[in-house]
Amino acid sequence: MVIPTLADMQAARARIAPHIHVTPVLSSRMLNELSGAELFFKCENFQKGGAFKARGASNAVFGLSDEQAARGVATHSSGNHGTCLSYAARQRRVPCTVVMPKTAPQAKKDAVRGYGGSVVECEPSISSREAAFAQLVAETGAEFVHPYNDPRVIAGQATCSAELIEQVEGLDAVIAPIGGGGMVSGACLTLSSLAPRIKIYAAEPEQANDACRSFKAGQIIADDSPNTVADGLKVPLKELTWHFVRNHVADILTASEQEIVDAMKLTWKRLKIVMEPSSAVPLATILKNPRIFAGKRVGVIVTGGNVDLDKLPWN
Amino acid sequence: MVIPTLADMQAARARIAPHIHVTPVLSSRMLNELSGAELFFKCENFQKGGAFKARGASNAVFGLSDEQAARGVATHSSGNHGTCLSYAARQRRVPCTVVMPKTAPQAKKDAVRGYGGSVVECEPSISSREAAFAQLVAETGAEFVHPYNDPRVIAGQATCSAELIEQVEGLDAVIAPIGGGGMVSGACLTLSSLAPRIKIYAAEPEQANDACRSFKAGQIIADDSPNTVADGLKVPLKELTWHFVRNHVADILTASEQEIVDAMKLTWKRLKIVMEPSSAVPLATILKNPRIFAGKRVGVIVTGGNVDLDKLPWN
Repeated sequence: MVIPTLADMQAARARIAPHIHVTPVLSSRMLNELSGAELFFKCENFQKGGAFKARGASNAVFGLSDEQAARGVATHSSGNHGTCLSYAARQRRVPCTVVMPKTAPQAKKDAVRGYGGSVVECEPSISSREAAFAQLVAETGAEFVHPYNDPRVIAGQATCSAELIEQVEGLDAVIAPIGGGGMVSGACLTLSSLAPRIKIYAAEPEQANDACRSFKAGQIIADDSPNTVADGLKVPLKELTWHFVRNHVADILTASEQEIVDAMKLTWKRLKIVMEPSSAVPLATILKNPRIFAGKRVGVIVTGGNVDLDKLPWN
Repeated sequence: MVIPTLADMQAARARIAPHIHVTPVLSSRMLNELSGAELFFKCENFQKGGAFKARGASNAVFGLSDEQAARGVATHSSGNHGTCLSYAARQRRVPCTVVMPKTAPQAKKDAVRGYGGSVVECEPSISSREAAFAQLVAETGAEFVHPYNDPRVIAGQATCSAELIEQVEGLDAVIAPIGGGGMVSGACLTLSSLAPRIKIYAAEPEQANDACRSFKAGQIIADDSPNTVADGLKVPLKELTWHFVRNHVADILTASEQEIVDAMKLTWKRLKIVMEPSSAVPLATILKNPRIFAGKRVGVIVTGGNVDLDKLPWN
């Protein structure tokens, strides 16, 4: 297992700078009053591809040798990682293929193709996905870029927290949603070195609380097929992300489906930004845990803004 | 008629700086490709009170003498001006009263009260509104701050364009929605002095095209009760705003209801921001007039983000 380092984050930052946005930080007096904390929302929903995943994907793609890159990149993802890997591959003008279950939403397939990526459909089972992926790699020699269990990806995601602590002084805590743990691991990588006094929290849906249970049990627990409106957070921890979570996270907090939807709507209304349900989980947990956050300066990672406007969860 | 000057804008800028946000400018490669132009969205939806109106309202409130201010401010508005005047009055800790038809949406009344303003309800007719307003001013001596036909308000709105040309170099055009014409007049005030090569366009719903018809006729034409999804744009020009529009606007472009809703949804999807229907009218007119805008660098004023999330116009 190769653990990415602060030097890897710094190299990633230089490497991806031409391909990503330095995203703005927004705040709302009303949300501060409601939470009793000072909240600084790091808006990765404004990132290229609509999600922080453009950071890790760009770092992986632009770190390849010319020879590797020419064979293209590949992944399996029905979410933002597939879209953002396609974005990064187009930036380097190399092929990208994303294996997706045929049951994935049309909008997700369109998003990959919109950036010039190819979609290979498989049956909605792990065995079918693995078979389709193995065949693809055998045929093309494409480089596999895992959505989170990959040191290049984690080093890329880690650049987000480096920006945040330059944009906001004196943070007491940073909180991000946790699914596979790529963003949280990136925060751990950067903050444990550059700002070790900042506490790192992860936020998770109650209905997909495998990371929380892993944290308490001291070992990875993976759920079979959790169901939550926060569809970016259904995947389990893997060994690399578990390394960071276990060593550097202060706590993993959870919120109910209703609390997540309420926090999402509240953010749209008050911050005037479009965010995914997954991105609302941190605010939901902040509002139900004033004991932890009151009086604190808290960085809140808004992980993405790719949402189906025709199927909003409060309608 | 007192025409506000560049010096008034500059005084306004210093006066309101502690009370408003310098709002960010966002862009989208996809929207640039679609329009053939380079679009720079000035996000006044992130402004205090959720709309650019906080600028003019703050300038009016903080320009009062202590004696005037102590008697409070008043206006009639069922839209963002009432909310933002309440915001500015609270910042100065003086009373604010907003006359509104009793048929106005509860959310608008709540927004005024949320900033500590009082709502006086009247019947939904001009005569009832004027009677209620006259009584209020007679009783309190409150200072009337018109939503747009007021030199203090226009000088305040003019600060938005001053920020924009510092944030984006080499603009060829600026476009803003037009209702009463406060924001457009502010753009005229600033740009005609500081950047006279920038063309100023106004964008209006076809179904409330009184400004467009006024512009062509060479005199103010007011509609009786226009109906459009862009509910911030139903009000007519008045003498002060007509002065600026007549002298400095290059053209007034219109868009249909469907084009407005499509542009609104497109912006939410691509820029990941929550904007009002009124704010989508400029993009709608840009997309239907590539002959005017293709190849140009265009500043687009996103005027506000106060929208009922339970009644989105595409649902």
